[in-house]
Amino acid sequence: MHYRLLLEYDGTAYHGWQLQPNAPTLQGVVETALATVLRHPARVHAAGRTDAGVHARGQVATFRSERVLELRELRNALNALTPPDVAIREVAVVPESFDPRRDATARVYEYRIWNQPWRSAFWHRFTWHVPRALDVPAMRLAAAALAGEHDFAAFRAADCDSASTIRCVTHSGVTEAENGCIYRVQANAFLKHMVRTIVGTLVEIGTGGRPYAAMAEILAGGDRTLAGATAPPQGLVLVAVSYERLPL
Amino acid sequence: MHYRLLLEYDGTAYHGWQLQPNAPTLQGVVETALATVLRHPARVHAAGRTDAGVHARGQVATFRSERVLELRELRNALNALTPPDVAIREVAVVPESFDPRRDATARVYEYRIWNQPWRSAFWHRFTWHVPRALDVPAMRLAAAALAGEHDFAAFRAADCDSASTIRCVTHSGVTEAENGCIYRVQANAFLKHMVRTIVGTLVEIGTGGRPYAAMAEILAGGDRTLAGATAPPQGLVLVAVSYERLPL
Repeated sequence: MHYRLLLEYDGTAYHGWQLQPNAPTLQGVVETALATVLRHPARVHAAGRTDAGVHARGQVATFRSERVLELRELRNALNALTPPDVAIREVAVVPESFDPRRDATARVYEYRIWNQPWRSAFWHRFTWHVPRALDVPAMRLAAAALAGEHDFAAFRAADCDSASTIRCVTHSGVTEAENGCIYRVQANAFLKHMVRTIVGTLVEIGTGGRPYAAMAEILAGGDRTLAGATAPPQGLVLVAVSYERLPL
Repeated sequence: MHYRLLLEYDGTAYHGWQLQPNAPTLQGVVETALATVLRHPARVHAAGRTDAGVHARGQVATFRSERVLELRELRNALNALTPPDVAIREVAVVPESFDPRRDATARVYEYRIWNQPWRSAFWHRFTWHVPRALDVPAMRLAAAALAGEHDFAAFRAADCDSASTIRCVTHSGVTEAENGCIYRVQANAFLKHMVRTIVGTLVEIGTGGRPYAAMAEILAGGDRTLAGATAPPQGLVLVAVSYERLPL
């Protein structure tokens, strides 16, 4: 049987999704819980390998087992065996050929900025604290310049090893939120650190360090050294992964 | 000088507001930070003594010092000296006669319920997880029955020592939220465990254990043993304290 998990996690305590020998990872937590329930080891494959400190509300992951399990019982057992900062929202059975990474047709990320002089006691685990006042309308104009199919080489990490840097961004917008703002972006796929580099650039624009038109110039230039600093991981959440062709 | 603090805190790690000899408390954390900044001990008085595990977005507290301090610098110094789960939102100077508890004309509390079969990885510190489906319209009708000036003896803790049990509730409502609901209540003052006992009763109504009309009957009966169980502390937040007559 081929099973699909929909996962939520607070990434604060983890060294990212991907298994590491001597550090707590989300893949490690899920595989440990699965091994207990299934009584055999099972490899878990995710739609995206979130970085250390990055969160998810809708990560998708799959595993295989010969055992036929009642889905609600499986979810409850996994939730009982994972720590409180990891939750299994849903369990489903998927076709044998389903690949959570390759079959994904869109991913949505949100990045939260806490824009008050005081740091939030509630939100510090899930926001980047920017104490200087932000010009949200300028950030909104800059964000809109990223929509469409473009070469995003200017916004990738130095060690990003993607063969192509062309991505199709179907939404890129900034909305006001209580005590701050949220950057929301949807694309077919993302380059390493792409969202965090965009957010770092947006904040430089929002604090007046650059005009909003700089975003389009940076995108067109394709030079990572022209973009802003990479924003810290804790503001970022993988909100959803879409599979248009998947019969769920 | 008489100073007023507006405080936000995640109460998860604390044994409530009030100072205790061998347990971490919010009063203790604030007084320790103040003693460092002021270079003398200072007693802090709060608008309300939140219970262990209860949070605040708008707790109000005062202290006295002979020192005349620049308010923004004072706030920044206190934020640097308190842990990340405590934030000083504002510092103001208030009249000598100001009393944060007695002068308060209204308090607002919110209680968050997470109503999904799976426990939230993000919200578990700030919600009560109720996995059974809730009838929110029935809860809304029950909550509305509490508005007005009433004897709330049915909703106070066994060890509540208030002389009078009459309170004036100016708002009592349930709203739908993402993956759950929020009970919001405003009153001139509250009895010990009053909000949590109301929420425990609302959830019994929401899960079909009692009809919505039971709320008015319990209120009229004045007998604590007829109300529901006390809801757990982590869903509760002291949102705001109002001082109508205060010139801020």
